[in-house]
Amino acid sequence: MTQNLFPAWPEAAPDLIAVAAGRAPADTVVRGGVWVNVHSREILSDHDVAITRGRIAYVGPDAAYCTGPDTQVIEAAGRYMIPGLCDAHMHIESGMLTPAEFSRAVIPHGTTSMFTDPHEIANVLGLAGVRMMHDEALMQPVNIFTQMPSCAPSAPGLETTGHEIAPEDVAEAMNWPGIIGLGEMMNFPGVANADPKMLAEIAATQKAGKTVGGHYASPDLGPDFAAYVAGGPADDHEGTCEADAIARVRQGMRSMMRLGSAWYDVESQITAITEKGLDPRNFILCTDDCHSGTLVNEGHMNRVVRHAIACGCDPLIALQMATLNTAAHFGLERDIGSITPGRRADVILSSDLTTLPIELVIARGQIVARDGVCLVDCPHYDWPDTARNTVHLGHDLTHADFEIKAPDGANHARANVIGVVENQAPTKALQVDLPVRDGLVEGEGDVCQIALVERHRATGGVVNGFVSGFGYGGRMAMASTVAHDSHHMIVVGTDRDQMALAANRLAEVGGGITVFRDDTELALVKLPIAGLMSDSPAQQVARDAERMMQAMRDCGCDLNNAYMQHSLLALVVIPELRISDLGLVDVRKFEKIDVLEAPA
Amino acid sequence: MTQNLFPAWPEAAPDLIAVAAGRAPADTVVRGGVWVNVHSREILSDHDVAITRGRIAYVGPDAAYCTGPDTQVIEAAGRYMIPGLCDAHMHIESGMLTPAEFSRAVIPHGTTSMFTDPHEIANVLGLAGVRMMHDEALMQPVNIFTQMPSCAPSAPGLETTGHEIAPEDVAEAMNWPGIIGLGEMMNFPGVANADPKMLAEIAATQKAGKTVGGHYASPDLGPDFAAYVAGGPADDHEGTCEADAIARVRQGMRSMMRLGSAWYDVESQITAITEKGLDPRNFILCTDDCHSGTLVNEGHMNRVVRHAIACGCDPLIALQMATLNTAAHFGLERDIGSITPGRRADVILSSDLTTLPIELVIARGQIVARDGVCLVDCPHYDWPDTARNTVHLGHDLTHADFEIKAPDGANHARANVIGVVENQAPTKALQVDLPVRDGLVEGEGDVCQIALVERHRATGGVVNGFVSGFGYGGRMAMASTVAHDSHHMIVVGTDRDQMALAANRLAEVGGGITVFRDDTELALVKLPIAGLMSDSPAQQVARDAERMMQAMRDCGCDLNNAYMQHSLLALVVIPELRISDLGLVDVRKFEKIDVLEAPA
Repeated sequence: MTQNLFPAWPEAAPDLIAVAAGRAPADTVVRGGVWVNVHSREILSDHDVAITRGRIAYVGPDAAYCTGPDTQVIEAAGRYMIPGLCDAHMHIESGMLTPAEFSRAVIPHGTTSMFTDPHEIANVLGLAGVRMMHDEALMQPVNIFTQMPSCAPSAPGLETTGHEIAPEDVAEAMNWPGIIGLGEMMNFPGVANADPKMLAEIAATQKAGKTVGGHYASPDLGPDFAAYVAGGPADDHEGTCEADAIARVRQGMRSMMRLGSAWYDVESQITAITEKGLDPRNFILCTDDCHSGTLVNEGHMNRVVRHAIACGCDPLIALQMATLNTAAHFGLERDIGSITPGRRADVILSSDLTTLPIELVIARGQIVARDGVCLVDCPHYDWPDTARNTVHLGHDLTHADFEIKAPDGANHARANVIGVVENQAPTKALQVDLPVRDGLVEGEGDVCQIALVERHRATGGVVNGFVSGFGYGGRMAMASTVAHDSHHMIVVGTDRDQMALAANRLAEVGGGITVFRDDTELALVKLPIAGLMSDSPAQQVARDAERMMQAMRDCGCDLNNAYMQHSLLALVVIPELRISDLGLVDVRKFEKIDVLEAPA
Repeated sequence: MTQNLFPAWPEAAPDLIAVAAGRAPADTVVRGGVWVNVHSREILSDHDVAITRGRIAYVGPDAAYCTGPDTQVIEAAGRYMIPGLCDAHMHIESGMLTPAEFSRAVIPHGTTSMFTDPHEIANVLGLAGVRMMHDEALMQPVNIFTQMPSCAPSAPGLETTGHEIAPEDVAEAMNWPGIIGLGEMMNFPGVANADPKMLAEIAATQKAGKTVGGHYASPDLGPDFAAYVAGGPADDHEGTCEADAIARVRQGMRSMMRLGSAWYDVESQITAITEKGLDPRNFILCTDDCHSGTLVNEGHMNRVVRHAIACGCDPLIALQMATLNTAAHFGLERDIGSITPGRRADVILSSDLTTLPIELVIARGQIVARDGVCLVDCPHYDWPDTARNTVHLGHDLTHADFEIKAPDGANHARANVIGVVENQAPTKALQVDLPVRDGLVEGEGDVCQIALVERHRATGGVVNGFVSGFGYGGRMAMASTVAHDSHHMIVVGTDRDQMALAANRLAEVGGGITVFRDDTELALVKLPIAGLMSDSPAQQVARDAERMMQAMRDCGCDLNNAYMQHSLLALVVIPELRISDLGLVDVRKFEKIDVLEAPA
């Protein structure tokens, strides 16, 4: 690892002082801009910013006195100087990109600080995987702070992850240079029940003086919520309505409002500020999950800020929610989040505060993007074989691995079927009568097979079941090693041979997503890092993902967010029915359930 | 030391959760109050607060479900529930009281958190003295966080303190449990000139993740100010006008606005919020210095908040500036500063948000004051002899120690005289022709003698000079071991015998303030702890101080703040002329100057 060394304020202080005092020239001066001051919430024309050693030395009406012959002068020419944008909670893996390629994709959008929770890789590679993400994060020319994942497995006893995260892991990680806090504490029933492991993770984080991320995914604002708050999480991004946002802020948490590729929780909550007039300091914007296509086509935090403004939020307040508020939440307000002395020189130039065009991006004093083009190297970590070789099937799969045997002599069977519901994360627990042929229960109509293929320990385990709602027809199968949260492999198909082909193909390429029809691969997204991420550019991953989604449509599926539905079918914390490596799970009861009902 | 042990949030979390979830009864419930929510900036009627282990477990519409038969129920009866008030920067020594007695004085006023800089004792006893203050602070039933003094001596080379503070001391203190940051960095020219010692102190604080207090006592907002900001101080309380407050906040510092016994800097700066409409989050209220008389007769932070409201500030914003804003500044917003789960249960009940009567004070879940009466024990530290025996004169002083010899044969002399100016901290450098009798230069008219008596190392040193402006007549002298900042002894008098009496008297009682006239002691304030503080109750100290000021008046002095003028005459950082143990100092040039001009 070549960590991108960057001096802390005290190390840079003598030079910053020398520049501010006029005794030494600045490295860089941004001249004649409109200072967007997120501390005072003011817009101040005709200001200069002097930068040295990557930090801001001076902001004032005239930096001529600290401009020397070798000073790089950037003409702001009356444009707004906006602090680099911060994403307060996100998963890099959601972009199917490594931290380096994610950075390269978002830098032109003005994102200069990210607070990332590598929860997905933690499920595959445990603490070692978190460390790899953390290390590549520290190599980047922008600020990526790592939130230590808290919940792997997400549902203990109902799934088997590649590795687990223990309180001792959390305590150890708190000493790493790039760890900023604990990642979203998803086990909210655990906190409300004072689960000693969850409390130990929170305690380790609090004792390190770091921020405990929350994740309270329930509309219940009664005693369960109160108990969760009393447990210590300092923020929450799972609110979906105004009352959620207000409740969190009143209880002394920060309300993170997210606009991800598939999350639309800003418009419904921002009225707490725009209509109810609450003090906005405790509201924060984030993305949580952005697909590479969104990054390529729509933007990142600039998209969120624009959206907040379009929802009626004062642009300065919207910008505070993506800069200073975030920095303050993580104890970093003396380091990032504003254009003021001592802070990292992360500055965006933009000619409009409403549409927010990102015309020039400076990170740590260096021009990193101009007019949508990334101008800086985003170094790649040397991912070891343990990270590149994570699909372990035990044996080549055949159609026989996907057979669901009927009870002896039955000619039909009543099956518990996972019912996918368009535009909803929860599934329905259905019961469907299915035909039996040659002793095997067969899908019929919109019901096809689903399999959870173990891939972490080469057990050869395959859990089979049924799913409905995708609309697939013909002889096809789709497989993905992105399979939240334990990230085994989910295979959905109408034909057992195609299912075997798809699963074996992912083993061959080291993970990703593939669609087969009639023995032919229609699309492939290679995700060689942990079976979750590509180290190719976002444009390519977005293109491959688009092809994959077209292949799903070609096979008859026209669901919105069809791929997301596929990848969430093993998420055994969201009702009603899911599949895991341990079996079919009724999430309403947190119990395993048989695929076939016993004959009457 | 018996430190008042208080569980951190993670230690209390299992119990807090149990109460919030309804599985265990609360220790205490405050019922039916109006929740002053400083996070959302709202007033919310009909709320209950449940408390356990001194922390808040639940705030919501009905705590009946966590109220058991043994739960103490406090009826708020529709009164406001306000977070305990925080004083963001202050010197306990200014009250001439120990931390215990200061606490006892301010608890009935609703102050439950103080950020104190024991700068005065640091000058007398060095790091050991800071530790004693720190230790007594941690014994109290309210929160006293210690700022490690940064500048002892205040003026290196121009005075000799009892002890000095070095960067290594700062680094060591950062590991003490009660240290919250660095005390006001008064050496602003040092910072602007990148003095390595000052920068090392700042760096040690920043590396410990703590807050660097500022003190930029200059109206110059040009490059010197910019250089000071670039050096790292995170706040400043020396602003005196709106432009000062705005400049500090724009530069990413917090503007602390003070109302002390003799500082009136709120009204002139708060217009930055009330008229200019700046985001108030970075403004904070503090007292800096409060005399015991103010504490007894007027109040403490409640006085400051009331004043801010009287200046036109929204009461909720004024309260934020004395609660949440302060907590956030010191990285404590998850621990104090609001009535929300997990925080220390520091709550005031008040029936009016404008006049702010402090009717009941709860600190850490315990009722500590009701209707102006302190109901809690404030334990005393066992101050050692080294702290109680700090007036070392070397020998009994006589009139001969105060003689100012004239040049041989002169019958008059031209003297450099410290000119006290009413209601101003700066003095005037005067030159006055004075008579010579028996070879000695004598005061005349309003010019009398001043002596700086060394008291830390028993050198026997006495530096003599002249002062004007007090208006003293007759045969009198006044002496004080409170003598900012190095706290030797300042004696002012019209008669050398009285001066000797007064000085010897303070040596006898271990320090304090005394006034003699015609060989009789008119008043005595005993300050046996370091010659700075009394461990008697504030009422007694205030009464003694009032008698002392009456004695000054009886001797002919009718200056406003006459005693403060006396105690600041050795403060060799404020122009124009001061006296130190090294001689008369012309602070305009930071140079020593002779008392008598050479004959023409």
